[in-house]
Formats: sequence, C-alpha cells, structure tokens
Amino acid sequence: MENNIYFRRANYYETDKMGIVHHSNHIRYFEEARIFFMKNIGCDVAEMEENGIIIPNVDAYAKYHSPIRFDDEVEIEVKLVKFTGAVMGFDYTARFKDSKVTASVGHTEHCFVNSDFKPMSLKRKYPEYFEKLKNNISLSE
Amino acid sequence: MENNIYFRRANYYETDKMGIVHHSNHIRYFEEARIFFMKNIGCDVAEMEENGIIIPNVDAYAKYHSPIRFDDEVEIEVKLVKFTGAVMGFDYTARFKDSKVTASVGHTEHCFVNSDFKPMSLKRKYPEYFEKLKNNISLSE
Amino acid sequence: MENNIYFRRANYYETDKMGIVHHSNHIRYFEEARIFFMKNIGCDVAEMEENGIIIPNVDAYAKYHSPIRFDDEVEIEVKLVKFTGAVMGFDYTARFKDSKVTASVGHTEHCFVNSDFKPMSLKRKYPEYFEKLKNNISLSE
Amino acid sequence: MENNIYFRRANYYETDKMGIVHHSNHIRYFEEARIFFMKNIGCDVAEMEENGIIIPNVDAYAKYHSPIRFDDEVEIEVKLVKFTGAVMGFDYTARFKDSKVTASVGHTEHCFVNSDFKPMSLKRKYPEYFEKLKNNISLSE
Repeated sequence: MENNIYFRRANYYETDKMGIVHHSNHIRYFEEARIFFMKNIGCDVAEMEENGIIIPNVDAYAKYHSPIRFDDEVEIEVKLVKFTGAVMGFDYTARFKDSKVTASVGHTEHCFVNSDFKPMSLKRKYPEYFEKLKNNISLSE
Repeated sequence: MENNIYFRRANYYETDKMGIVHHSNHIRYFEEARIFFMKNIGCDVAEMEENGIIIPNVDAYAKYHSPIRFDDEVEIEVKLVKFTGAVMGFDYTARFKDSKVTASVGHTEHCFVNSDFKPMSLKRKYPEYFEKLKNNISLSE
Repeated sequence: MENNIYFRRANYYETDKMGIVHHSNHIRYFEEARIFFMKNIGCDVAEMEENGIIIPNVDAYAKYHSPIRFDDEVEIEVKLVKFTGAVMGFDYTARFKDSKVTASVGHTEHCFVNSDFKPMSLKRKYPEYFEKLKNNISLSE
Repeated sequence: MENNIYFRRANYYETDKMGIVHHSNHIRYFEEARIFFMKNIGCDVAEMEENGIIIPNVDAYAKYHSPIRFDDEVEIEVKLVKFTGAVMGFDYTARFKDSKVTASVGHTEHCFVNSDFKPMSLKRKYPEYFEKLKNNISLSE
C-alpha cells in the first residue's frame, strides 16, 4: 500500500442534483488524502494540533475532468511538492479506482500558525516535523 | 418580522442526486433557525461561547413531509418548548414560504457545558441568560 | 467482517468550532452505514436507483452520547428493524472502534417512491429486493 | 442593492475545529453568489436546468486572506469575467460586511452541457441566455 494513495467511496450525501459529487467535495477529498499522507510520514495532523500547530489553507484549486458519481471508488494520489518551512504545497490527482481515469486534479497551499493564527517557524519550534516534511518532498518527474 | 421565523433559500450544494435537499440539511436549517431565535431573545450563541458556554445537541429529530428543492424559499419556525436550566428543547416547522405547506418538522434538545464538556449550571453562573430563556418558553397551545 | 458494521474515520471538515463532529454528520454516517449494509444484503442503492426506486427518508433521529473528534475511528452498527414493503426502519449505534463506547444511537425510516416521488410497491414491482429486505429484518433481542 | 453583491452570515455548522469557516465552504459561498447574480441578470439556474442546461464547474480556486468566523456577516462580490458561449468564468471577492476587509478571493470556470453531460451550444440553442450573459461581462478595470 502506497503511503500517498488514499482510497474512498463517494457518499450519497456528497452528490448534488446534477447527479454527481458536488465540486466543493473534491476539495474535501483532497484534505482527507493530505491528512492520510501526513500521518503516514509521521506528521499526524491531530497530534500537530495538540502541539499547537494549526495548518490553515492558503489556497485551494481543483480542476474537474470527469464527474464522480455515487458509490464510485476513487483513489486520491497526493504529493508534497513544496516545503519552505513556512509554506507547504500539495498536488492531488483523483482517479477512478478501476479505470484509473482522472476525475480531478488539484493543488493546495498551507501555512503553519499558532492558536492565535500567528505564523510560526516549524523549523525552530518543531524540527522533527520539519525534517519529516523536508524528507518527503516529491522531486519533479 | 417575527423573532422566531427564520427565512432562507435552498442552496444548490444542499441538494442530492434525488434532486432534493438532503435530509441531513434540515437538521442544519433547524440549527440556523435556533441560533437566529436565540440571538433575538438576547442569547447570542457566539457571545455565549465566548463566555465559555458550549451548547451541544443531546439529540435531533426531523420528520420529512414534502421535499425542499433547489432555490425554494423556506421559513423555519422555532419554539423553545422546554427549559430546565440544564436542558433546553426546541420544536421546528419548516414551511415553503409562499404556500405555507409544511416541508418538515423537528425537535432538538441541548445541554450547557464548559469547554471541557462538563455540565454547567446556567442559572448559577449566567443568571441573565437563564432568565431570558425562561421568559421565552412557548406555552403549549 | 460483519455485514452490518461499517467503519470510518472522522474527517477534519466534519468537525465544528466545538471541536467535535457536527451533530448533523452523525445522520450522514448513519446513511453511509445503511447503504453499506443494504449493498451487503443484495440491495445496492445505486442499482435500485437505476431501476427507478428512490428511497427518501421519512424521518431521522440521533441521540448523542459521547462526542466524536477528528480522526477518531468509529464503527456504525446498523439493523433493519422494520420492513412492511412500503416502509423500512433502521436502528444505528455508532461506537468508538477501540473502546466500544457508544458515541450515538439513531433511527431512520424510509419509503420507496418512483422518480416522481409517488409511492411504489416494492413487493409487486421488485419482489427480489422485497425478499432480501424481508429476510434481513433483525429480530428483537 | 447591487445585483452582484450577495450577503450571508456564516453558519455554525460551516466552521471546523480551527474555529473558522472550513476552506471548502468558501467555494460554496461563491456558488451561492454566482447563482444569485445569474438570477439577477435573467439567467435563473433553476430555470436553465429545467430547460436541460446543466452548468458544471470546470475548475474552482480560492485564496484565503482572513478567516471567516461563526456569525460573521460577509458579502461576496461576483463578476462574470469570461464568456465564450462554451465556457464562462467568474471572479469572486468575499469581504467582511462591516470592515470591507477581504476574506478570500476566487475564480471558477463552467461549461454548458445537456443532461448526458455532452457540451451544448448556448448560442444556438438558447440565444436569450447567451445574450444576457454576453451583456453582463465585466470589463477589466
């Protein structure tokens, strides 16, 4: 099992009257995949938040290629493509599990703040998380 | 304008592939109406939370009479039907604004806890909120 | 693996500012569990909808015992407790996977309609689904 | 009242455990604003769908400037910045109603398809909608 491929099935309540998963939910799928991947590399978001590290989105983008329908099984591949210590960026590809056809691609960027939403230096305050993220940046292909 | 009738329009993303507002969203409409009503009687939920009063749901019920569709205008009437200081209960009726046909009815109960989710006595710690709620209980008709 | 116990993890976006999974999402978890169970007994909801059988909620109830937090693993046990051919009812218990402590319990009722939301007789039109549901009613304990 | 400025208040259930409106919900706010604006210029999305015109998202982008909190009043300004007949694009700015501080900005693109998700020519099949959209493109400032 790859540490950066997250599987899930489309829920009924995620569809809209178009009969497809609402576009905003792809952004939520990306979040699930990102949190799954981060846990796998030793950066458990629940634990990081308990340590006072809040990781808000700086931005979010999704491009829709093929609609996901109720009960479709999808896999979301996530890659850490940018990490400066202050900002990290992820690329996502959602594919239908069987056909491997692309459903959507996306990108999000995030920063690290404390509970007052003030920027924090991950490198100085949490060097162990810093190293784990640094060591898991995807090299461009 | 009645202080206990809340208006809103059904959003596209609230529909599901059945072409109607997903049943879980009625529970969310009830929440919006309850928060609107509480603010109107001097119990602003945002302010109460800042004062350390958390108001989780004890339960939630909805019965669906007629489906709400995208862009339908609905009014949600809310009544405080129970208030003991420890627990409060609300009745809801969602109606189509124009026809006044009932879309759904519901009921929720809530308690008051501190930020550690320990029960608190509203009467002792926040007598002003206690009085406002007590004074706004709907008598049965 | 039991055919009526559905596992899932609480997602970040399902929490609210109270720090717990929003109460409306328990209703959504119940839906996921119900659809999982129905597929397991041969009543695939996606397939039933393709056959023109729409299964709206008649009502929904949840009682909250213990808050679910981000990343908690929960299991939702679902039982078909009522089936008349026109109406079916399910009981749900959501538990924390490890401790087996109850997070919430619930009940939903559903009817069968065609795409115009007119009631349909499952027994007459789809005897095979009728039999499968009838054979999977939980006897009271 | 401007036809392209949509007002709403942040709901409790839209917040997450960070205490702010979840980033995916900005995408939903943009949808509300877009549908409001389209109705105002004579392109009622509910009516268009009844006429068989489905308008899926091609992409969606949001950049987050300042977190929206529970009960904040926001205004979302929407501009039609691109319209080719086959594709339309909108820019969004969400601001806090009182301070006019920017909460987020965004952009979405959409196409027009029939109920089988095949591209359709709005110009040929629905010239009246085509004209209304063409006449409401925002000129760059």
